[in-house]
Amino acid sequence: MLRGIIRGHIVSTKKQKSLEGSKFMEVELMKNGELTGEFIIAVDSGVGAGIGEEVLITTGSSARLALLNQNAPCDAVIVGIID
Amino acid sequence: MLRGIIRGHIVSTKKQKSLEGSKFMEVELMKNGELTGEFIIAVDSGVGAGIGEEVLITTGSSARLALLNQNAPCDAVIVGIID
Amino acid sequence: MLRGIIRGHIVSTKKQKSLEGSKFMEVELMKNGELTGEFIIAVDSGVGAGIGEEVLITTGSSARLALLNQNAPCDAVIVGIID
Amino acid sequence: MLRGIIRGHIVSTKKQKSLEGSKFMEVELMKNGELTGEFIIAVDSGVGAGIGEEVLITTGSSARLALLNQNAPCDAVIVGIID
Amino acid sequence: MLRGIIRGHIVSTKKQKSLEGSKFMEVELMKNGELTGEFIIAVDSGVGAGIGEEVLITTGSSARLALLNQNAPCDAVIVGIID
Repeated sequence: MLRGIIRGHIVSTKKQKSLEGSKFMEVELMKNGELTGEFIIAVDSGVGAGIGEEVLITTGSSARLALLNQNAPCDAVIVGIID
Repeated sequence: MLRGIIRGHIVSTKKQKSLEGSKFMEVELMKNGELTGEFIIAVDSGVGAGIGEEVLITTGSSARLALLNQNAPCDAVIVGIID
Repeated sequence: MLRGIIRGHIVSTKKQKSLEGSKFMEVELMKNGELTGEFIIAVDSGVGAGIGEEVLITTGSSARLALLNQNAPCDAVIVGIID
Repeated sequence: MLRGIIRGHIVSTKKQKSLEGSKFMEVELMKNGELTGEFIIAVDSGVGAGIGEEVLITTGSSARLALLNQNAPCDAVIVGIID
Repeated sequence: MLRGIIRGHIVSTKKQKSLEGSKFMEVELMKNGELTGEFIIAVDSGVGAGIGEEVLITTGSSARLALLNQNAPCDAVIVGIID
């Protein structure tokens, strides 16, 4: 799993139907508490994370298990907010 | 998920039957709004994105969920156009 | 699979329900016995590894097979302690 | 998906039974039409690509969908020849 | 798929039950016949490869298809010895 800080959100009006309602967050990845300058886009699974918050991200097919619609074509999900 | 700008499309006449009709787009990846010089090839899932447009890409086995033929051997799909 | 040394653990109070009770460990990866400065976050599958211990990590969808709850959205698990 | 040029093939007499008959090709990856010096080994799915040809590769679990034996332990397959 | 040379093996007494009996090999990856200094840990699927031998590795969920116990949490398997 990855950790990082939410830097912004991405708006996509024209998208796959199964992704409607998804919040796409752009997250800067960290390692050992330091920022890396690498980014990933992850969907918020309902933990309610906002810009500036540090989050935990699951990638790959496991990510979909965190979504209400597990058939959505999504490969990265925010699964927790780091205290 | 990844974001990037479509730079071109790839033509493959001799290909797997289950990929017939697929539009293969070469996409330059971005991070935090900047181009990276890295590229991926993704199939358009029907959002109708063209060259120069900024798109959202899902990779891995989750990508296939965005295709009409979910048994096509495809690992990257354009799932949205970024506004 | 990957090997590395556990450097710390991450606390996430607000997280996906299916991850409740999971111990998130931050692991510095090694190659050929040397530290790399790269990090991954992995869940302890019950081998009981602590900070400073060298561990074996499985990633991707295979990782979930090591968990009691195989539907937890987790992509990296500590599956062994290296002697 | 990835694109690249086939540079050679690999012979493995002693291998998993389910991979018997597979042609393992070593492919140099390209980005935006330029060679990268990075390599991957992919199985030809039957498109009949030879050394020097430019090909399209699918990776991960999706790759197996292009094989006759979808239970073969293979993670990269040549799915098309680029015109 | 990846190729590389087996450099050593890793012993883990305390590990997941489903990995008991697995031989964990540390493999230095190659590209185009040259060593890269990158390493991966892979389980021998029964091809009987030893230290110093050049091998073919499958990663991801496809790797498990080469194991007797396909539910073992393993993401990299040696599937062949290169001649």
